[in-house]
Amino acid sequence: MTATRMRLFTPGPVEIPPRILRVLGQAPPHHRTEGFRETLKRVTAKLAWLHGTAGEVFLLGASGTGAMEAAVVSLVPPGARALTIAGGKFGERWASLLNAYGIAHDVLEVEWGAGVDPQEVARRLDRDPSLRFVFATQSETSTGGLHDVEALAGITRARGRRLVVDAITGVGVHPLPQDRWGVDVVVCGSQKGLMIPPGIATVSLAPWAKDAIEGPGLPRFYFDLRRYRKSAPLGETPFTPPVSLVLALEEALTMIGEEGLERVYERHRRVALATRAGAQALGFGLFPSSPSHAVTALTPPAGIEAGALVKRLREEHGMVIAGGQDRLKGRIVRVGHMGAYDLPDIDALLLALEECVAALGRPATGALPAARAAWERA
Amino acid sequence: MTATRMRLFTPGPVEIPPRILRVLGQAPPHHRTEGFRETLKRVTAKLAWLHGTAGEVFLLGASGTGAMEAAVVSLVPPGARALTIAGGKFGERWASLLNAYGIAHDVLEVEWGAGVDPQEVARRLDRDPSLRFVFATQSETSTGGLHDVEALAGITRARGRRLVVDAITGVGVHPLPQDRWGVDVVVCGSQKGLMIPPGIATVSLAPWAKDAIEGPGLPRFYFDLRRYRKSAPLGETPFTPPVSLVLALEEALTMIGEEGLERVYERHRRVALATRAGAQALGFGLFPSSPSHAVTALTPPAGIEAGALVKRLREEHGMVIAGGQDRLKGRIVRVGHMGAYDLPDIDALLLALEECVAALGRPATGALPAARAAWERA
Repeated sequence: MTATRMRLFTPGPVEIPPRILRVLGQAPPHHRTEGFRETLKRVTAKLAWLHGTAGEVFLLGASGTGAMEAAVVSLVPPGARALTIAGGKFGERWASLLNAYGIAHDVLEVEWGAGVDPQEVARRLDRDPSLRFVFATQSETSTGGLHDVEALAGITRARGRRLVVDAITGVGVHPLPQDRWGVDVVVCGSQKGLMIPPGIATVSLAPWAKDAIEGPGLPRFYFDLRRYRKSAPLGETPFTPPVSLVLALEEALTMIGEEGLERVYERHRRVALATRAGAQALGFGLFPSSPSHAVTALTPPAGIEAGALVKRLREEHGMVIAGGQDRLKGRIVRVGHMGAYDLPDIDALLLALEECVAALGRPATGALPAARAAWERA
Repeated sequence: MTATRMRLFTPGPVEIPPRILRVLGQAPPHHRTEGFRETLKRVTAKLAWLHGTAGEVFLLGASGTGAMEAAVVSLVPPGARALTIAGGKFGERWASLLNAYGIAHDVLEVEWGAGVDPQEVARRLDRDPSLRFVFATQSETSTGGLHDVEALAGITRARGRRLVVDAITGVGVHPLPQDRWGVDVVVCGSQKGLMIPPGIATVSLAPWAKDAIEGPGLPRFYFDLRRYRKSAPLGETPFTPPVSLVLALEEALTMIGEEGLERVYERHRRVALATRAGAQALGFGLFPSSPSHAVTALTPPAGIEAGALVKRLREEHGMVIAGGQDRLKGRIVRVGHMGAYDLPDIDALLLALEECVAALGRPATGALPAARAAWERA
């Protein structure tokens, strides 16, 4: 093996930049100190900037699923009905969450990898006024697909329904200006475009949705957003926060601010286009019909087994990509490039992919020039 | 100020040893890799060893309260009744959790700082057979008090009731051999005796309580322990775990193993006795009648204001201790010494305390010799 370290091209957690690792290696302060309270206020303000909201952002010690659950239990009253948009493992998670709490819901099935048709959502909502909530996904990690959140928000806002979007894989990758688009609630995680280890999740609430969490909701305690609202103005969280990850998050948000949010989105777009073009030159197919810039999901060239490819890439090149999940197991591979990735990273991956497809019996070349051309065209 | 760094003597999070900070500063692996699966299995096995259980230990990405909630929602069916033991802010949290889920319960009030009378628990359980669950605290962070978990477990086991113990502040400080004592469920956090940043919490289930989480329970998803049970044999968690903290936890458990569990408990006992003796020589009173070795809660000498003491200690000596919470606000100060603390740490704190009480108008001496004598007597 030529690699002396593992490189993550995973759909999250992702590579952590050295600047952030340095912060993680420092002794964190106690959370009930003036210094940390100021840090938490700054981090919250920067997250609101990232989300483009004048509303509130709540910070939870949990994985992204915890924040999804916090949104469900804080917003949805017993007896309410909802529409969930499927189309992947994480779209389906909304339905699983509602099931766990006995909340009746319609599931809008979407072909895996495709974007939901916003007009179909409009029809469903028009047909059934009892569907008060729509639960959707921006970037679907399991398929590499992207949904048009702006169009969805236009439809829900016009009909007075609440839209809750899982942007765990989308944050810092695809724009999602919450207030401008009209998204009531956005849920995020820390280990994707935010470039830090997993353990923090956030819920952001648009200003007009302020009252949405003050209703009866479902039984809840740790995920009761009213508690977070009470503590936030003090620079506190209701339960001990993952202090070291909060410091790391501040560093990540500083990095994003330094590069500039628009340039961060632009870099992700170019990285994604380069990855697709390079892989397609090697005979891979692009799985999603509506591809995300967070994760590139690829069908391997005919005759090459997805599992063998993942294994060889890891064992011979020290590069970690992911296989498919659930019904896509064995059918696709997924390359994550959320966070600090640039063209040299993608070049290194494509070179290794080129070696792997040759070793597995389907030699092909031209990945690098194709990637470079796509990068420059982009 | 003579200090160049802040020193935490807080009731958690606590000082993180350099060995653990080094681990936190390294690039963590992806969680769906063979290497990390092996790590998670080792960490789980070491936690079971620490708890003295042949049962299961589940690892959650959450604060300790999240693990308390996981125990409640996974064990308690709708309509059940429970007994909670109060005696402090965290004892009272059990009641708040049950309230949030509409579970009827009796609260056994205990004087703050005192240990619960096990015979009173026995009387309550004998009088009301519908109390199927007892929720208790081992070491109460808010009062510095300790409850006799061994005695409680004897009473609940003899009566076929389930005992759930919050050992968040007790783990790695006071022995709690789960299977030998007969404790059904133990809940822990990472930022106390385990010496790592907050963000991981655990629930350990005694072997005879295996079925306790398979019943209907309350509505739950992220805190559904059945999901953790399913993933654990694969070296996985149902939701993305806080990878970097899991690696840090392994280092902490290795450190505890190297020192020896009995010696770790013994060191905490001597550190606590030295802290008490030194502070008492300066005119402080020991607040709890049943003191814990995790946190020393002290009433300041007459005429000295708790808040002023905390402030001066921080600003002049770079040492962070905590004030009182809730009804103890302004009445006590709390010194945490969970984790890697030794006599030189306590000497430094006592010297600083000595300076503070003098500066605040109640000069006193003799803290160090008193601490040393207590350490040697112990």
